This record gives sequence, C-alpha cells and structure tokens, in this order.
Amino acid sequence: MPRLYFDHNATTFLAPEVASSYFSALTEVHGNASSVHRAGQTAKQHLESARHSLAASLSAAPQEMVFTGGGTESNNLALLGLVRSLPGPSKHIITTAIEHPSVLEPCRQLEREGVAVSYVTPNSDGVVSPEAVLQTIRPETVLLSVMHANNETGTLQPIAEIAERTHRLGKGIYLHSDGVQAFGKTGADVGQLGIDLYSLSGHKIFAPKGIGALFIRKGTPLKGIQYGGRHERERRAGTENVPGVMALAEAAGLCAPAGNEATATLRDRFEREILAAVDDVRVNGNFRMRLPNTSNLLFRGVSGEALVIALDMKGIAVSSGSACSSGSVEPSHVLLAMGLTPAEARSSVRFSFGRYNTAEEVDVLIEAVISAVRQFRRHTPKEQSLVAV
Amino acid sequence: MPRLYFDHNATTFLAPEVASSYFSALTEVHGNASSVHRAGQTAKQHLESARHSLAASLSAAPQEMVFTGGGTESNNLALLGLVRSLPGPSKHIITTAIEHPSVLEPCRQLEREGVAVSYVTPNSDGVVSPEAVLQTIRPETVLLSVMHANNETGTLQPIAEIAERTHRLGKGIYLHSDGVQAFGKTGADVGQLGIDLYSLSGHKIFAPKGIGALFIRKGTPLKGIQYGGRHERERRAGTENVPGVMALAEAAGLCAPAGNEATATLRDRFEREILAAVDDVRVNGNFRMRLPNTSNLLFRGVSGEALVIALDMKGIAVSSGSACSSGSVEPSHVLLAMGLTPAEARSSVRFSFGRYNTAEEVDVLIEAVISAVRQFRRHTPKEQSLVAV
Repeated sequence: MPRLYFDHNATTFLAPEVASSYFSALTEVHGNASSVHRAGQTAKQHLESARHSLAASLSAAPQEMVFTGGGTESNNLALLGLVRSLPGPSKHIITTAIEHPSVLEPCRQLEREGVAVSYVTPNSDGVVSPEAVLQTIRPETVLLSVMHANNETGTLQPIAEIAERTHRLGKGIYLHSDGVQAFGKTGADVGQLGIDLYSLSGHKIFAPKGIGALFIRKGTPLKGIQYGGRHERERRAGTENVPGVMALAEAAGLCAPAGNEATATLRDRFEREILAAVDDVRVNGNFRMRLPNTSNLLFRGVSGEALVIALDMKGIAVSSGSACSSGSVEPSHVLLAMGLTPAEARSSVRFSFGRYNTAEEVDVLIEAVISAVRQFRRHTPKEQSLVAV
Repeated sequence: MPRLYFDHNATTFLAPEVASSYFSALTEVHGNASSVHRAGQTAKQHLESARHSLAASLSAAPQEMVFTGGGTESNNLALLGLVRSLPGPSKHIITTAIEHPSVLEPCRQLEREGVAVSYVTPNSDGVVSPEAVLQTIRPETVLLSVMHANNETGTLQPIAEIAERTHRLGKGIYLHSDGVQAFGKTGADVGQLGIDLYSLSGHKIFAPKGIGALFIRKGTPLKGIQYGGRHERERRAGTENVPGVMALAEAAGLCAPAGNEATATLRDRFEREILAAVDDVRVNGNFRMRLPNTSNLLFRGVSGEALVIALDMKGIAVSSGSACSSGSVEPSHVLLAMGLTPAEARSSVRFSFGRYNTAEEVDVLIEAVISAVRQFRRHTPKEQSLVAV
C-alpha cells in the first residue's frame, strides 16, 4: 500500500536532491570546522558558503545567521538570548496566544525570571491585528514575538505592518518572528518584514532534522544560551553540524515560488472538492492570508482524531493539531484562541501539502476524506452528533 | 595524495556501517515521532529502540537517556539543568581546571547566577586526585563535575573512586562526568562509575554531528534548558532527530574492546618509535591511565602549530590543543593547569587515532613526524630554541 503524506507541517522527508548531496557531504566533509588542518578548513569553507547562501534567501548578511540544532532552539535562543541580555529590572514582551510551544514556553520561563508577558489573542480568522499588538505596548516593552505563519491553520500574520508601526513609535522595541512554518513557503525577506530575529528549521523544508538557524540582525543584543567554545560568533557553542548546514542551505534554495504555487493549486482543489461534497465543513483561519500548503478543516460532528486514524488505516498521513502537542488530550490552543469551542477544535483536521505531492495522490485523499466523513456521520446521526460535541 | 587522519578527538568521519544505515534511515524514517499516524509511530519505535540500545551500552535504563543536539548541549543540560533546579540561595559546585569549555563555560554562567564554583587543579600528570576533590567539598556543595577522559591528553580520571568516596559522605551530592571523549573508547558503565549524569556525543564515535545524549539517573532533579513541546520526558524540547539518534546508537554498538585494543597498539607503537628516534620528547599526561587512542607529545623547542601545519602539508591531520580553542592565541589551559610552561604547552601536539587507521598509515605518520621535527630543529639550533621558548 503506498503511503500518502499530507502532514508536511509536522515534518518533511528529505528532498531527493538534498538527500543525494547530503549523503556526499556526510562522507566527504567530515572535518571539525574549528580544526587548523585541511579537513577542518574544508569544512569551514563549506560552512561559510552555506551560511552565505542561506543568508541570501532571507536577504540577510552571512554574519547575521547563526546555525542551531532546530527550530525550537532557534526560538529559545531568540527569546531567552535577547531578553536576558537586556538590562532589567522591569521588562515586558508581547507575543500571541497562537504561537508554537517553542515560543510560548520560553515566554513562560521568562515570566518565571520576572519578565512580564502579554499574549495577544487573534481574531476569529486566526489573524493577529496590528492594532491589538500596538495597544499592548508599554513603556517597558522590549520585544514583540509574532509568528510569520501559524503551524496549525497556515494563517499568515501581518508582520511587516506590525514591524513598521512599531518602528514608527521609535521606542527601540525588537521584533522576532517564528518563521519555522513560513520559511520556504512564502517570501521571507527580513528587510521587507522589518524584523530583527527570524527562526527557521530544516526538517520543515525537506532538509534533515537536527538543524535550524536564527537570523539576528546586526546590532541586536543577544547572548548565547548554550555555553562552551567560541563557535558562531560566540552565540552558539558546539561543533558545527556542517553537513546539516549544507543540507539546510540547499533545501532553502529549492523552495521556489513555482513549487509553492503548484502546492497551492493542489490544496485549493482539495479544499474546493471537500467543501462541495461534504456538508458542515468550515475552513479554519483566514482563507486568503494563508500558507500555500495548509488546509485546516472543521468537520462538524466528526472526531478529528478518529478521522486521522481512519485515514491512516488507508495509508494517508494527516494530523489533528500540531505534532508537538499530540498525545495530549487538550484541544488545540490555537483554535481555542480563535474562538472555536473545544468540540469544534476536536473536530478539526490539518492537511498540509508539499511540493512532491501529486494530483493523483490528492484524488485519493479527497475520496478518502469524503468517504470517511460520510461513514462517521452515518454512524453518528447529525442531530445526535450536534448534541454530543 | 591520500589524507591521513589522526585527529579523532576533534571529530570523526562516519563509520562505513553507520553511513549505510544512516542513509537508509534518513530516507525511510522521516516521520515526526510525535505524530499519531504510521510514519510518526514508526519513527517513535525507532527512537525508543535506539534509546534502549544506547542505554544498554551504559548499563542504564532507557528512560534515563535524553537525546540532545551534541556534547556541548549535553554538558550544558547536565550542569545548568541540575543546578538551576535545586533550591538556593547558596549553592556550590566543584569541577576541574582541565574540563572542556562546554563544562567550564556553563560553570562560569552559574557563577554569574550566584553559584560558587571551585576549579580543582590536576597533578602534573593530568590526573585529578580524589583527595583534592574531596577536600574541596563544602556543606553547600551540590554537584561535582569531573570529566571521564581529557580531550587533549586522553588522561582518564578516577571517577569511580571520586564517586564512591563522595557517596560515602552521604551528603546527597550529585556527580556529573563529561564522557564525550571517553565514551566508546573505554568502559562507561554508569553504575560502576557511580555517577548521576554522563554526557556523550555522536561525532566523536563515528556517528554524525548534531546528535548527543545525556544519561540522567532516575530521581536526579533536572529541568530542561530549552523550552517547547513535551519531548524527551519534558527535559529537551524539539522534534527528535530520529535518524541521528539511530546512527548514534549504532555507532555506540560498534565501539568494541577489540577495536580499542587495536587502536592502542597503533598508538603505542607510534609513541615508542617517536620517543626512540627523537630527542627531547615527552608524553603529556598519565602514561597508563589514558584513553587507548590519544598521544599528546611535547617536542621541546618545536612550535606545535608549525608541526601541525608541516604535517598538514604532507596530508596528515593532527592538532595542537583542542579544536574548540583553535584559532586562539592562548596556550592550552589543560597543559598549563598540569604545570607546563606556556612555551611547553605551545610545543605540544595531540595525535588521536581511530579504529580505521592502519599500520601503514602510522608508518607514514611516524616518518613524517620524525623528519619534520628534525628539520625544525636543524633550522633552530637546540641551544637557541631552549632560550627562545
């Protein structure tokens, strides 16, 4: 049975092009980039060349890129590294209620360290309004952290507008954006976005797991959170994972508008056909300001978890909520923050497409979703299910 | 020109056996181990199976192993994670002056957080005496951190004796050991060692870079230092690098006593022939309590850096000092702590062997070292060099 993968926001496989050069790099570029001899210097050259190329994909300077062990570390480094480096005693940061746990939990840690944190709630379509953010700014606000795209709904946030209006205040507030889901799927020009810190991860863009990066605009104060050797301009100690870095840079280069448009075409057709064929379905999140690959659908009266399992039995991988909180009995904090009821959140399923999905695979998905939802609803008459949820 | 690699303490290449199954895992085990569907559950099974196997190599329980992004992170997690989780206000930890920067720098950070730290100096042979450690214990001592083997000299530390004598005091002091260099090259039974925390790294044992682990004995208090999802029993947030974990576990399984004995045979012959053929050479560190693969030699009157470069020109990779501090103009803090003068430290070179080195390669190394040292000394007459250094 062929496995059909529609859970790219959880993780991706290696792009074939990346796999082939990654395997070569793993074999050939084995030196420690800090070593003086040729094996070390070769690794160093590859490291800096990859840094250059990844920086270019963000319109950043190479020295503004720090490589990390993944998106979670990048978000931790951005938030903890910046806020801890700023003088106290009273510091305030603003983030949103729909961030990924790797932003929310560092914020909770900063609260334990005496920092005040405001969590802005999005509108019902999952968009954080610039007004809501701006109104939350206090004299002691030092940082805003608003994700570029939400991992569950794909909703894009108005980062550029938030940044521009914040800069206009002239208060020297720093801006971070978690770009883990957006990077590679939509433009991420850090100059146009107007941000100081941008996190990204390899395994969301067909690069390996265990590698990520953080853009740190020149002049942004930031202390490392992992101590040791003087790697990465003293911002991230630890022997550089050079083959991983090379794979990340290569994978970033393969993320092209054409691929994203093709993915959007598949996603849009999927959504159109599901909405046409199935009753009581709703798209969660803003329909237009959205990643090209994500479709979060609320199937009223259907258990999202059961639908995920039913599709899995047919060899189709999708998810309810994010992978990071799966296993948890809690409904999605993102959907709740958008105003969905717990029952509605539990009836929602995320379909996240990738550029290697084919039209034929999407045909199979559409048929499987329609048939599974109909089957669930036959077993749970609509009236009863509406009462039950 | 074939490249001859004798810098395994800086980093290793992928073992051929590991490379082949790592490449398969990278292609086939791509799911997010937190995902509910089959791709996720398959990844989860591989993760737990690798955890089981790695734990067995330490005589630990699987639930006592946490995977990290490398040795530096493991050391940071051990020190910061444990000490920050203990109640204050006055806490004291003991470490040694010859630790790796990834232990020393977290200690310096803990000092900035108000923790008192004592740095015990080793004897002139690089061994930390249990007496010196025991005498440093105070009523408020909460943690000892002594490396299992030093990265520059290979000197093994009397961890089991330190642990046993510390436990006999009954003060509930925790013990950490940085096993990054020792793991795989000497026995690392955490029960026999009597320690609570043990750090290890993939890229020192022919596994990929970007993966490491920390043994945390059941019942040891430890808070994560990277916040986010509830991975790794809430001790290390971030999507698990499952292929990397699998490669680490496999590489650990390939580290066998026979391979270490063969490496020791090569190392011993190298040292014997160099000592026989070259005047004024000394072995730094304890000659017997030592890793099987490391030889740190002091060539009086010769610049270690120049020797490294001369050998590199002949295609031979060795190092002066550790890779993590290369580029630095400071002489090795390890050798200085052992009582070497700065000139002696600068005249020292580390040769670190691996199980894939052959007797023929060692022949080439021996001849190259002898010829390079003689050439340097011809250009710098002995009397002059003794004055100069």
